[in-house]
Amino acid sequence: MPLISLEILPFHIFQHELMTRSSSSTHQAKTPSSKGHGLMRWIRRCNQKNLDNFVPFFWENQALGWIPVQCLSWFRELPEVFETENMKVSLHSRLQTQEARTDALAEVLEDWKDKGRVPGWRDELYRVSISFDAEPVFFLERAAASLFGICSYGVHLNGIAGDPERQRLWLARRAKDRPQYPGHLDHLVAGGLTAGMQTHEVMARECFEEAGIPTELAAHAQLCGHVSLFMENQGRIKRDLLFCYDLILPEDFVPCNQDGEVESFLLKSFLEVERLIVETEEIKLNCNLVMIDFLIRHGYLKAEMPFYTEIVAGLRSSDVR
Amino acid sequence: MPLISLEILPFHIFQHELMTRSSSSTHQAKTPSSKGHGLMRWIRRCNQKNLDNFVPFFWENQALGWIPVQCLSWFRELPEVFETENMKVSLHSRLQTQEARTDALAEVLEDWKDKGRVPGWRDELYRVSISFDAEPVFFLERAAASLFGICSYGVHLNGIAGDPERQRLWLARRAKDRPQYPGHLDHLVAGGLTAGMQTHEVMARECFEEAGIPTELAAHAQLCGHVSLFMENQGRIKRDLLFCYDLILPEDFVPCNQDGEVESFLLKSFLEVERLIVETEEIKLNCNLVMIDFLIRHGYLKAEMPFYTEIVAGLRSSDVR
Repeated sequence: MPLISLEILPFHIFQHELMTRSSSSTHQAKTPSSKGHGLMRWIRRCNQKNLDNFVPFFWENQALGWIPVQCLSWFRELPEVFETENMKVSLHSRLQTQEARTDALAEVLEDWKDKGRVPGWRDELYRVSISFDAEPVFFLERAAASLFGICSYGVHLNGIAGDPERQRLWLARRAKDRPQYPGHLDHLVAGGLTAGMQTHEVMARECFEEAGIPTELAAHAQLCGHVSLFMENQGRIKRDLLFCYDLILPEDFVPCNQDGEVESFLLKSFLEVERLIVETEEIKLNCNLVMIDFLIRHGYLKAEMPFYTEIVAGLRSSDVR
Repeated sequence: MPLISLEILPFHIFQHELMTRSSSSTHQAKTPSSKGHGLMRWIRRCNQKNLDNFVPFFWENQALGWIPVQCLSWFRELPEVFETENMKVSLHSRLQTQEARTDALAEVLEDWKDKGRVPGWRDELYRVSISFDAEPVFFLERAAASLFGICSYGVHLNGIAGDPERQRLWLARRAKDRPQYPGHLDHLVAGGLTAGMQTHEVMARECFEEAGIPTELAAHAQLCGHVSLFMENQGRIKRDLLFCYDLILPEDFVPCNQDGEVESFLLKSFLEVERLIVETEEIKLNCNLVMIDFLIRHGYLKAEMPFYTEIVAGLRSSDVR
């Protein structure tokens, strides 16, 4: 059995078993309206995909991403840059340095941009590697990340308002003119990881830009783990790893957005945050995972809740690192 | 491709990539002595296995465990209880009720006990199901859990001494006469889940028995998630899911063991706990995972530490739920 088929499988089983299992339980009835079901749907949605429609993308023995089968012909046109055998796409083995790989891909993408194959050009480079702590294999224009299905990294902040015992979180209402998730609820602070910066530096920068949190206060933000998603989105594979931070803010702190992304800020009890996740579609997709992780870490969910162990395990994927 | 081969695969890739990847990093050198390496070895050890030596154990379409290939002949001897085709063992489809399955297995195991095939008989039943929240398929003598490779469940308590800001954990030194891990460091409280009891009830019972923590205080123990392990141990598959609890104890609380399992209690700083995990073999195997999870949740590890994302994702397996 070829190595490339291996990574396709875990999710299939996972889905299969979730869909076919009995809906009864010794612990609690798994009715569609249960809390566990309401939380579990976000785990499912953030892992929904059919990998039969994609082929893995490699550099040597390092699996870096997933390319849509329907775009394979673009890669086959360029045998000097891509090797497209055995149901996978690999960067050509002649590209032996990071610079050579980055340059070759930049040239390809410039051409594809002109042909309309890479919409939303950003002029911003993403770092591409087998995992967060590995040497970058090359750098790639951000707009092409989804075409290659590479993993992108971000930071999200659970901003706890005042005394943690009072159990209130700051949320942001996204502006109605945003291209993505207009009017949805968002974390107080969240942002993508810029190549060459450490996570806590990005967190500090975003704290100031998105909520007016001064640097000295942002320095107290605590990294408490990560969540990940691995899903199909508009015919592309989206693989995101989000570092989850908690920060206790002073009782009299009032956030102040600097970059126009946010319409207003809201203070919600943990219980109300839970209700919003369970019952509504109001929260921006990936924030649901970070907030579920927050509720678990803070002892808000019971082991006997339907899907508890699937939710905890489903928040992270070993294929996204 | 048959369904049964699917679950074999994820770990193979994971291991393969961990073993073959470059040891360098943009963030920090991955020297063998690094903190990340010292933590990562527990993730590896708790997932080390060669599933080629096992076949999956099924009831209908529910994968319940893993049976050693070298014991397959025992199952083949009993075609009225086990179906052993297509490289898997299934409970016979004629056993249509929970009671019928439990009785049939009890009869088989009584015989195997007499033949010396099931050492360490306990007269204690384990609940066997596809996942923690699913209906039990049958109940099985605890001593046979490892032969069938079924998932077992436990509760572990991180006992925080006094003010959390002082960052100290209570640990227990296991008595030197214990059959397992004599003299090793253990959690203040830990125990296996009894069928029919809820996790917080077991936690309260163990709090009293193992550390003299009164029920009113134990009620404040907070469930913060779980860790899992899926490993080969003495020719058997061990699959454990451990629910992780945190409890802040009063400054003047002194634990008091009631059941003879513990030789003494120790108070250690979080930093010292980290050092014990990273540098020593002093801590009981599964406690390392729960304590690493604790350090992550409490902001003790940095994202740029080598293996950070692998460690966070590796603490849980979607095959153990």
